[in-house]
Amino acid sequence: MKWREDGLEIIDQTKLPNELSTRICKTGKEIAEAVKFLRIRGAPAIGIAAAYGVVLDVRNATAKNYEELRRVLDESCTLLANTRPTAVNLFWAIRRMKRCAERNRERPIPEIKKMLEEEAVQIHEEDRMCCRRIGEVGEKLIRNETTVLTQCNAGALATGGIGTALAILYVAKEFGKEFRVFVCETRPLLQGARLTAFELQKAEIDVTLICDNMVGALMNDERIDMVITGADRIAANGDTANKIGTYQIAVLAKEHKIPFYIAAPTSTLDLELAQGTYIPIEHRDKKELTEFFGKRIAPHGVNIYNPAFDVTPGQLIKGIITEKGIATPPYEISLKEILSKSPH
Amino acid sequence: MKWREDGLEIIDQTKLPNELSTRICKTGKEIAEAVKFLRIRGAPAIGIAAAYGVVLDVRNATAKNYEELRRVLDESCTLLANTRPTAVNLFWAIRRMKRCAERNRERPIPEIKKMLEEEAVQIHEEDRMCCRRIGEVGEKLIRNETTVLTQCNAGALATGGIGTALAILYVAKEFGKEFRVFVCETRPLLQGARLTAFELQKAEIDVTLICDNMVGALMNDERIDMVITGADRIAANGDTANKIGTYQIAVLAKEHKIPFYIAAPTSTLDLELAQGTYIPIEHRDKKELTEFFGKRIAPHGVNIYNPAFDVTPGQLIKGIITEKGIATPPYEISLKEILSKSPH
Repeated sequence: MKWREDGLEIIDQTKLPNELSTRICKTGKEIAEAVKFLRIRGAPAIGIAAAYGVVLDVRNATAKNYEELRRVLDESCTLLANTRPTAVNLFWAIRRMKRCAERNRERPIPEIKKMLEEEAVQIHEEDRMCCRRIGEVGEKLIRNETTVLTQCNAGALATGGIGTALAILYVAKEFGKEFRVFVCETRPLLQGARLTAFELQKAEIDVTLICDNMVGALMNDERIDMVITGADRIAANGDTANKIGTYQIAVLAKEHKIPFYIAAPTSTLDLELAQGTYIPIEHRDKKELTEFFGKRIAPHGVNIYNPAFDVTPGQLIKGIITEKGIATPPYEISLKEILSKSPH
Repeated sequence: MKWREDGLEIIDQTKLPNELSTRICKTGKEIAEAVKFLRIRGAPAIGIAAAYGVVLDVRNATAKNYEELRRVLDESCTLLANTRPTAVNLFWAIRRMKRCAERNRERPIPEIKKMLEEEAVQIHEEDRMCCRRIGEVGEKLIRNETTVLTQCNAGALATGGIGTALAILYVAKEFGKEFRVFVCETRPLLQGARLTAFELQKAEIDVTLICDNMVGALMNDERIDMVITGADRIAANGDTANKIGTYQIAVLAKEHKIPFYIAAPTSTLDLELAQGTYIPIEHRDKKELTEFFGKRIAPHGVNIYNPAFDVTPGQLIKGIITEKGIATPPYEISLKEILSKSPH
């Protein structure tokens, strides 16, 4: 994502890896559309995009006073908030934008607009730094010859920086470590195959693609040393919502005595939720399962179960790697501590 | 599959569910091609097809004596045996054809040819009866309101009759039971989405399609009462090779305390193998993961891990449902007993 004079430049991720197509979103509505249709995706990235969406709408507003501006801002926030329910970063970024407006309400309108733009740029910049820090904190877990399993895409394409789970791999690579990565293709939208394999290959990291139903066999066949995935929302007890399939990988990791890690910025923590059962799970269109590039792959009228996320219990998670360090069980204590820490 | 004057009529399963396309195989080579490219698939079905393949080649042979005929038969068997390594039914059927020839070696050539044709028809007919019996034996496990999870296709399309795992559902439906079925789409070739959803929908059974990475979430979200899948080869200790993904479903079933069953004819037993580690596992082309209907879904040159099968340990299997009854642990004893039983 690139913030420009005329809008937010994004890569249309639905076109990867066949086409590296960019587009410029000029309104909050265009950003909301891009988030809804997964042109932009990944919890940190949609938070950043939403912040810029608010800036675009407010910038275009002809409001004469704070109340008028605030109405525009609130409408924009509602539109952006209604795109996807699970990733908390979206709501976190929107809340920051609202607070920024409120904090600056006494200033002249052009200045409030300026402050909001600065806040969005700040959210973006902080995420970039978080990614780097997550990479540095997590890379200590990677040894030479380590084999890592990941799924979906928790890389540069999902964030404002070098990623979360993948940041760890990028930094380890930078430090000269030799390791292998397996990635699940991640049905139905194949973010593992289309995005993660693409990113890792570009970074010259040894990457092997598998189908989502091969995890168990792989853990029996090959030495898998650890699993690392991203997260969309983490509750106070460590229960973690992430891309569908994460939970069963965590169960398989337990069965095979493989440590399972989550990597996420602290903006993904939602400590107001005591546990994962309270995390709203998005269910998506049945076409994602019945069609493939417009080609029908299941009979007409078949019922579909299509949750986009699942919740992995904190008990299955060995550590949550954040920009402020690695939280370990009991998460009720460690996550609170980590959140209150100042950044390194 | 339909045995006709001019050859074996098959449904090209690669075209389902979009197109119900049949073709007639007139030589063993054409059958071998159909097996290799999964136009015919399913352990029992490829055994039957191989038997007919032998008949076609022998029938066309201009052999003047048994030795000449036997050479043609052996060549045909080798060709057919080299198609797919995992399902034992293929080798079992080929062995039966060889034994039949040997048993009748003293007869005139036209009569030997006739006996071989009868043997193939017999293999086909026995499988049809096995399917029915498996259905009758297994349907007792289905109660009203039961919810069953299956994967891949162990139905009419995979056998000479009404299927193995799906036979149980068909008979339960016939008996007026009300139940629901979830089916995994089964990547990479989507036999669950394309074939099982298609079959069950035709039979007016309530079927819901899921992606392979949704099994864990589903087991948490919905009441799943049992898992039933087919099998490609079962070792003496109950270790079972079946479509990739079966093993991890079995692990997830254990985690969620859901009974996991295998349904298969006794022709799928390979009691000469002490355990599943000795079962050869077919690895298939990388294109199955990198392309989809000719469309690229992963970057060029990415590494691929693509086993077509995995092995589920006998300890994870609550029962093996055969045409002669349900074998339960310890399988070393129960499978031997069941194999020596005369058919009901």
